[in-house]
Amino acid sequence: MTKVKIGLIGAGRMGSFHGTTAAKRLDNAELVAIADPFKPNAERLANELGVSKVYENPKDLLADEEVEAVIIATPARTHSSWVIAAAEAGKGIFCEKPMAVTAQEAEDAIAAVAKAGVQLQIGFNRRFVDDFTQAGKEIRENRIGEPQLLRSLTRDPGLNNAEKIPEWTIFLETLIHDFDTLNFLNPNADPVSVYASADALIRPDLKDNGLLDTAVVTIKYSNGAIATAEANFQAVYGYDVRGEVFGTEGMLSLGNIRMNSMVRYTKDGISHDTSRQDTDLLFNAYVTEMNQFANCVRYDTTPTPSGNDAKKALAIALACIESVKTGAVAPVIL
Amino acid sequence: MTKVKIGLIGAGRMGSFHGTTAAKRLDNAELVAIADPFKPNAERLANELGVSKVYENPKDLLADEEVEAVIIATPARTHSSWVIAAAEAGKGIFCEKPMAVTAQEAEDAIAAVAKAGVQLQIGFNRRFVDDFTQAGKEIRENRIGEPQLLRSLTRDPGLNNAEKIPEWTIFLETLIHDFDTLNFLNPNADPVSVYASADALIRPDLKDNGLLDTAVVTIKYSNGAIATAEANFQAVYGYDVRGEVFGTEGMLSLGNIRMNSMVRYTKDGISHDTSRQDTDLLFNAYVTEMNQFANCVRYDTTPTPSGNDAKKALAIALACIESVKTGAVAPVIL
Amino acid sequence: MTKVKIGLIGAGRMGSFHGTTAAKRLDNAELVAIADPFKPNAERLANELGVSKVYENPKDLLADEEVEAVIIATPARTHSSWVIAAAEAGKGIFCEKPMAVTAQEAEDAIAAVAKAGVQLQIGFNRRFVDDFTQAGKEIRENRIGEPQLLRSLTRDPGLNNAEKIPEWTIFLETLIHDFDTLNFLNPNADPVSVYASADALIRPDLKDNGLLDTAVVTIKYSNGAIATAEANFQAVYGYDVRGEVFGTEGMLSLGNIRMNSMVRYTKDGISHDTSRQDTDLLFNAYVTEMNQFANCVRYDTTPTPSGNDAKKALAIALACIESVKTGAVAPVIL
Amino acid sequence: MTKVKIGLIGAGRMGSFHGTTAAKRLDNAELVAIADPFKPNAERLANELGVSKVYENPKDLLADEEVEAVIIATPARTHSSWVIAAAEAGKGIFCEKPMAVTAQEAEDAIAAVAKAGVQLQIGFNRRFVDDFTQAGKEIRENRIGEPQLLRSLTRDPGLNNAEKIPEWTIFLETLIHDFDTLNFLNPNADPVSVYASADALIRPDLKDNGLLDTAVVTIKYSNGAIATAEANFQAVYGYDVRGEVFGTEGMLSLGNIRMNSMVRYTKDGISHDTSRQDTDLLFNAYVTEMNQFANCVRYDTTPTPSGNDAKKALAIALACIESVKTGAVAPVIL
Repeated sequence: MTKVKIGLIGAGRMGSFHGTTAAKRLDNAELVAIADPFKPNAERLANELGVSKVYENPKDLLADEEVEAVIIATPARTHSSWVIAAAEAGKGIFCEKPMAVTAQEAEDAIAAVAKAGVQLQIGFNRRFVDDFTQAGKEIRENRIGEPQLLRSLTRDPGLNNAEKIPEWTIFLETLIHDFDTLNFLNPNADPVSVYASADALIRPDLKDNGLLDTAVVTIKYSNGAIATAEANFQAVYGYDVRGEVFGTEGMLSLGNIRMNSMVRYTKDGISHDTSRQDTDLLFNAYVTEMNQFANCVRYDTTPTPSGNDAKKALAIALACIESVKTGAVAPVIL
Repeated sequence: MTKVKIGLIGAGRMGSFHGTTAAKRLDNAELVAIADPFKPNAERLANELGVSKVYENPKDLLADEEVEAVIIATPARTHSSWVIAAAEAGKGIFCEKPMAVTAQEAEDAIAAVAKAGVQLQIGFNRRFVDDFTQAGKEIRENRIGEPQLLRSLTRDPGLNNAEKIPEWTIFLETLIHDFDTLNFLNPNADPVSVYASADALIRPDLKDNGLLDTAVVTIKYSNGAIATAEANFQAVYGYDVRGEVFGTEGMLSLGNIRMNSMVRYTKDGISHDTSRQDTDLLFNAYVTEMNQFANCVRYDTTPTPSGNDAKKALAIALACIESVKTGAVAPVIL
Repeated sequence: MTKVKIGLIGAGRMGSFHGTTAAKRLDNAELVAIADPFKPNAERLANELGVSKVYENPKDLLADEEVEAVIIATPARTHSSWVIAAAEAGKGIFCEKPMAVTAQEAEDAIAAVAKAGVQLQIGFNRRFVDDFTQAGKEIRENRIGEPQLLRSLTRDPGLNNAEKIPEWTIFLETLIHDFDTLNFLNPNADPVSVYASADALIRPDLKDNGLLDTAVVTIKYSNGAIATAEANFQAVYGYDVRGEVFGTEGMLSLGNIRMNSMVRYTKDGISHDTSRQDTDLLFNAYVTEMNQFANCVRYDTTPTPSGNDAKKALAIALACIESVKTGAVAPVIL
Repeated sequence: MTKVKIGLIGAGRMGSFHGTTAAKRLDNAELVAIADPFKPNAERLANELGVSKVYENPKDLLADEEVEAVIIATPARTHSSWVIAAAEAGKGIFCEKPMAVTAQEAEDAIAAVAKAGVQLQIGFNRRFVDDFTQAGKEIRENRIGEPQLLRSLTRDPGLNNAEKIPEWTIFLETLIHDFDTLNFLNPNADPVSVYASADALIRPDLKDNGLLDTAVVTIKYSNGAIATAEANFQAVYGYDVRGEVFGTEGMLSLGNIRMNSMVRYTKDGISHDTSRQDTDLLFNAYVTEMNQFANCVRYDTTPTPSGNDAKKALAIALACIESVKTGAVAPVIL
């Protein structure tokens, strides 16, 4: 196969990581262009990766005929409009999560993609973490029966620039991973209602600014299963991503925060090192998702997680926001 | 020390286990009398343990001057009245959980015990499981900082005689363990409100009878911590009791369902055996709690978990029942 | 059953522990007499345990008709002569390992026991550790096929009074546990030859005194299996006892030095606490072996590990001594 | 940097894997030529990887000026002669282990490489497995003090084509990994003597052909440390590579055969899946070693494991062969 020629929109932290993956870690893709409204970002990365085309305006990248597919790694609130623009330009689209932050945006993005007939894959990387991939497979093979209790959690290693975190980020950008994960692990059901508790426990001084840094969500599903999603922005021990699915015939436990399998025994007891960065803990998942995306673009197959998956996870996040506002249970509007 | 002379009230499954502990597994106690309204139960156990005094009416046991302390292992709904009667008889009291099933009963029992000046210990055995005991200690030593997220779960190995399970058992008899555990692990705060989801997922046919066999509860505490308690009556893999406390300085993970540490590697992969009975998984905890009780009786010291601990856990259970009835968040009334 | 009336010979560290087990931790035994040539030792323990009979001369204890069975916990070099004396006195015998330190002594002890028709159980406690018990059972059930590679190790937590350790202690008193364990885990074969490496690595200054504090032994068995036994007198992380059996159909891994299952996650990573004392790590095993012994005495059944087991393990230890002396492979003389 | 142009000599199983790594998994290398005396092998791989140059005679590949560096993945007995030829051709050399099978060959290869001033890296991939890399680092940082007891083991998942396995393969090709690992983990000492036990336990019918499929080796080091190396050609549960280093200040335990971290709980207990192929278990290590090699070639730095490392591991293997032949301890001749 010839390598898929990829353009990157957004050269921040995640954009740089994805761009590096496309440029250096894959056999089926190459990075041909980078766009960032703050052009020095794009130039720095292009220089580092040996990419010759740099654009200030992402629209120029979308107009570049060499570019077959794009990675959208801009701020979350702009994702859906770039998805629409990329679809209209006929590009394959890898969009970082969340694809949208309102239900209308989500529908518009899905419609634009459908109309253009392009591939759209959402950056719910957790589906590509070995444990979660295998769990998804075994659940679909009915190895643990019908899911009854589920859990998914995300704990980020540290809260930086807390002042600049947009309102509702914990639901729209963090827990949305967990919502998609739970949907993925309970595949024959839809979310029905949520109850969300959230607070600013790490930075209570910023609660009035709208910061929520800790949240627990209970989700009821149409098959009766009850799921818990949990997030916190500051786990001193590292980056923590885990899951659990309890079904009628068994349980699967997922996730591991050890840096490696080495075990140390000293006078202080037994110890292991932990992963401190998502890009360490989930490195392989990030590469695997991009590899799948390039394959789907090249062979014109439909990737998952899809736009509809994004919409479904978003619906849970929006219900959580409603629940926090009202202090009551909120329905999930699909 | 001379052994504490114990009388057992209730010779069912747990009563027989506790009676055997008092009779055979402790150096500081002996079992001198057994009462059970169904006298053959008492006689069978007395015969097995070499106990000479058997009573049909527990009141006769309470009137027996040889008896210094009693173990109350009758049906849950009768606990508080036997606590009151035992207190009035001046006996030390070990009462299986729940101590009471209404707030009034709880208050009456606590008042009777206070008036009589006797010891009262509640059978929240989980505080005596090594992992949980150590966690309680380390949390009090501030080793993981202020608790922010907590989890406690109970999964029973199998649902038997589901038709005969009293209404609200999942909260009043099962999750009450988890509520006490969470209170124990978040010692400087009080529960404020709950949201409970519950269903009959294992036996949906019995939902109309009032059976709830699966439940997830979110509890907000006065220090901002958010806790999740989870129960299910049928874990095919064994008896599952675990906990997790996430704080500002670290996390503790508690519980282990392996039967032992042997690991088996075969053509099918790696495997471990699990514990299938609470009395296997928690054997040491059951013995430890009774040993503490006998010591407190002998040396006239005040045991924990106390009547107030029982009342606090009950308040959460009652709020859960309210939450299920209304489908809304319910306050915890302390 | 009536409790077995036990006399303790030797009130040192292990004697005190075993005496306490007989006195307080068992339902089927009681401690009625204690003998120790250093009488204050016996008196202190008798006082602590409420035992009324104290002897300076163990022969007087053996002459006591109330005593049904004895625990021999004297220095290793005197075990066999006390076994013989106890057998001649018609007492059931629990003898700490090693039963003997020469082949002739072992034969004499076995003969005396056979002639007297009394029970003899050797204190190879590892057979009573859950993991090892289950492994023995599964190997006999052929669940991992024919053993091909075995490993057993003992690491003591600290080297104290190194100057007073008798020559060859590492083989005769420490590794003899591992030799019996390996024999137990490879039940259909006999040890054939050994190669032993040993050194004074912890206290090289005492090597000229005959101290060996570190040893690795390779044992060839008659079924072709090759076993490794390993010991060290100073593991800074705690008391470490493990095993591994690799067979044609699978592998079993045995042993666990964690103090409990609690896992701590902090900024320094993940940590567990370890057991620091054999009497913590192996507590249940010590109680279980003594419980079995009392049952065998009461019901006149033959216990294992037997005198022949002791002789077989000793034969390996003696071959190791020969191997260290010659620097060459030595045959195991059964 | 410009990619290092690599030529592959030997397109068998490992050669194909290494060739694929050079062609597709690295950012700093590309595969430009493939040679295999059985030309269809080379052609098949070249076709698969899009490599245009195919040679039947490796000498022609060595004469190709475009080729900067070579991967030698021919049968073990031919390695040293290809190392010499490649050195004389001025190519950087990655040579699969063992670099040589006699001491003379090892010296000749090292001399040729020194004379030519080219890079030589040996395929002791275990040094690049995360656990082992970190252990090597921590040992050098003195975090566990002076090594006293070491263990390294290799268990292959299945014995195929046993009839064709060259004599002494278990030492020269399998355990040589463990010998290098032990040398790496005990960096300030030299091996002094060995005692090796080996047998044909899996295929006893082939023992007369010279097959040895199971071996245990004890190695004494100049710092007093005693190491055990263990190998078996048929572990039914998967590919098993582990290590342990016990030192004066602690122990490190290395290796993990789980396929991922997912844990499955069912009515049969707890289970994990295992890795069945070295190229799964050690995938990252294979990529990391080749990446290091390409960097060393490009930047003209000296890689490890070196020719001298290969020679040292070989010396242990040769001493093992001597030990098996004589049934006695054999010196390691460095």
